[in-house]
Amino acid sequence: MKAAIITIGDEILIGQIVDTNSGYIAKALDRIGIEIKEMLSISDDKQAILDTFALLQDQVDIVLITGGLGPTKDDITKKTICDYFEDVLVRNTDVEAHVIALIERALQREASQMNKDQALVPSKSTVLHNEVGTAPGMWIQKGQTVFVSLPGVPYEMKYLVDNQVVPKIVNEYERPFIIHKTVLTYGQGESLVAERIEVWEDNLPDFVKLAYLPAPGRVRLRLTARGIDKSFLETELDNQLAQLSSLIGDIIVGYDEEETLEVVVGRLLMQKNKTLATAESCTGGKIAQLIAGISGASNYYKGSVVAYATEMKMKLLGVASDTIQSFSVVSAEVAKEMALNSQKIFETDYVIATTGNAGPSKGDSTAAIGTVFIALATPDGVLVEEFNFGQPREKVIDRTVAKALEMLQKEILKNVL
Amino acid sequence: MKAAIITIGDEILIGQIVDTNSGYIAKALDRIGIEIKEMLSISDDKQAILDTFALLQDQVDIVLITGGLGPTKDDITKKTICDYFEDVLVRNTDVEAHVIALIERALQREASQMNKDQALVPSKSTVLHNEVGTAPGMWIQKGQTVFVSLPGVPYEMKYLVDNQVVPKIVNEYERPFIIHKTVLTYGQGESLVAERIEVWEDNLPDFVKLAYLPAPGRVRLRLTARGIDKSFLETELDNQLAQLSSLIGDIIVGYDEEETLEVVVGRLLMQKNKTLATAESCTGGKIAQLIAGISGASNYYKGSVVAYATEMKMKLLGVASDTIQSFSVVSAEVAKEMALNSQKIFETDYVIATTGNAGPSKGDSTAAIGTVFIALATPDGVLVEEFNFGQPREKVIDRTVAKALEMLQKEILKNVL
Repeated sequence: MKAAIITIGDEILIGQIVDTNSGYIAKALDRIGIEIKEMLSISDDKQAILDTFALLQDQVDIVLITGGLGPTKDDITKKTICDYFEDVLVRNTDVEAHVIALIERALQREASQMNKDQALVPSKSTVLHNEVGTAPGMWIQKGQTVFVSLPGVPYEMKYLVDNQVVPKIVNEYERPFIIHKTVLTYGQGESLVAERIEVWEDNLPDFVKLAYLPAPGRVRLRLTARGIDKSFLETELDNQLAQLSSLIGDIIVGYDEEETLEVVVGRLLMQKNKTLATAESCTGGKIAQLIAGISGASNYYKGSVVAYATEMKMKLLGVASDTIQSFSVVSAEVAKEMALNSQKIFETDYVIATTGNAGPSKGDSTAAIGTVFIALATPDGVLVEEFNFGQPREKVIDRTVAKALEMLQKEILKNVL
Repeated sequence: MKAAIITIGDEILIGQIVDTNSGYIAKALDRIGIEIKEMLSISDDKQAILDTFALLQDQVDIVLITGGLGPTKDDITKKTICDYFEDVLVRNTDVEAHVIALIERALQREASQMNKDQALVPSKSTVLHNEVGTAPGMWIQKGQTVFVSLPGVPYEMKYLVDNQVVPKIVNEYERPFIIHKTVLTYGQGESLVAERIEVWEDNLPDFVKLAYLPAPGRVRLRLTARGIDKSFLETELDNQLAQLSSLIGDIIVGYDEEETLEVVVGRLLMQKNKTLATAESCTGGKIAQLIAGISGASNYYKGSVVAYATEMKMKLLGVASDTIQSFSVVSAEVAKEMALNSQKIFETDYVIATTGNAGPSKGDSTAAIGTVFIALATPDGVLVEEFNFGQPREKVIDRTVAKALEMLQKEILKNVL
């Protein structure tokens, strides 16, 4: 079973916003065995929409569309659907009652005519009820292809995908199985990993596909198998994984699918009943935000001091002004003091501390742009590593975050083994 | 002049990563007057790539392609380009020398054959030199259409777009002007704004397009004009903006194009020579990270305490345990103390403080999920507002961040007027 995803909106085509809806929909469909053939982002333009519908007609089983369902004049998806399906808009009374109640409850005012017109839907469509917003989803078929139109507001789209679209597909279609297994490796580059597994890769069966997903400091290897016999696929992938482990077991740090390092680290901390705090300078709160973004983080994460200004490293974290003067604010010594002092302040088992110069200007330090020190306070002491992550600023920050989490993960595992 | 953007990679089609490259390229092209007709994400599959090239051939002037240029077997873009252009790969000695030097410098080892083969490029292509990575960009023409292939690693893609692709287009093509003007409104929903400006909107000239970009608590209105006479377009847009201001001046808070609120706030703080710190609980460092992510932030941003655990609100921020016991940790009183105490600790003019319950579980507080208090310490005192942002967790965090920056912006402007 094949699908395509269309995102409608000029704001995407001029780069004003990034389309995150397609990724969410893709993941949800992939989970139930639907292969995404392509994703398209097109203009709020009637002809562009009609052309794209025609292009996908009978080429895929289902087309998921987001955007263009708002109440304003630039939202033309519904009218265009009527053109394409030779249909007319009719008022759905259930949707209208919901819109009126929602506007009164959320905004404490009466629904305007424009709000109420959200209840106009193509007569041939099945309404997908949107509990969390005013624009309903619509499900409408032509030939071999079902078109599903969803609002572009991310949490409304997510609600409809999870509660309406996926259950309806699962009910109405037979699907093959798609199984992914992901192996996370650390410390060797993509081409080195590829060389080590070349023979194995060349001998993979046809129904198994390998992908390399490199990121700063790490490479994810994703194996994908497609077929109708789920247990056969599972066995075959487990077999392949065992062979892979025998080749590169030394650099494999995890097997979980789609898990980020902050999730892995969080689970390790929870399992070992250990706690964490952070003391950030050049990463500016990014490590804190990643860790705190995971639900349940309050079980192991105490918090962070983002000591962005040099004076705050002294005042909040008690870094000695002598240390800063002798070694400069971007130094191993400052990183160490940040980590060790924070360990006392937060009373945690581990502290990640970062200090560096992310650029583009040199700031309070004479260190070369890209220089970063990461210190890790542990129950046994403190380690510190120096890096030069080059430029630009975002790369320096991202690599610092990745490396800091990697250092923490290694250290927790070491203390456990 | 029209363009299309293709992203190649199964990891996007299964939702494992979100494509942010297309947005960056779109913005860069939009700035130089190129209209993006569509964006497509397709599989690492030879036939899918060939079909998409054929679909766009002579339909657009330029096709930007990212992804599939790595050294591993799943990277097939170069071979597929050779098929499409009936070309062969040849070794580019400049690129090879660069790859060898880069690997030696960055990884302190010799380049492998796989690394060196990054220097193989289609003979008909012009190499776009990639200073920051091993995969070169390629520029190759067929019929009316230029195809430009770029690596998928974001900072390498960005380097090539900024330093090679955009300058080359500017040099070689005449382009029309595309001008956007964006108006940022606060406090009224999309449909209410639309009703207030309906007559004006209906009378916009054909070459001006209006788009509504709603987000939590705010609506951006974007006017886009296309044409060959830049000063005429500018005058016309300024005229339309003046009319718009006379209609909804009461809710307009800014006019800048594509500016995020953290950029606006940062510039205001710099202009007024004021300083800021943050004290975050439920937002977990996200406000800090947004503010610190802007280069030059060290001029006005002192740092943040992310007091994620309740005890840290007392220990680091000096919130009285009586206050927490009497009012609970999610309360106006705790938010106020967090803000006022941080103002003393950081010695800043302004402090944003957040405490709330983002869900999904209730944590240390009995407050309903979605309840958030935001306090703002100012040179004149402290304000605090209560919100209920509902669910899910990410929406609560995002709306808290947006509302906090909005409160700060309003307050700075008030103190200035």
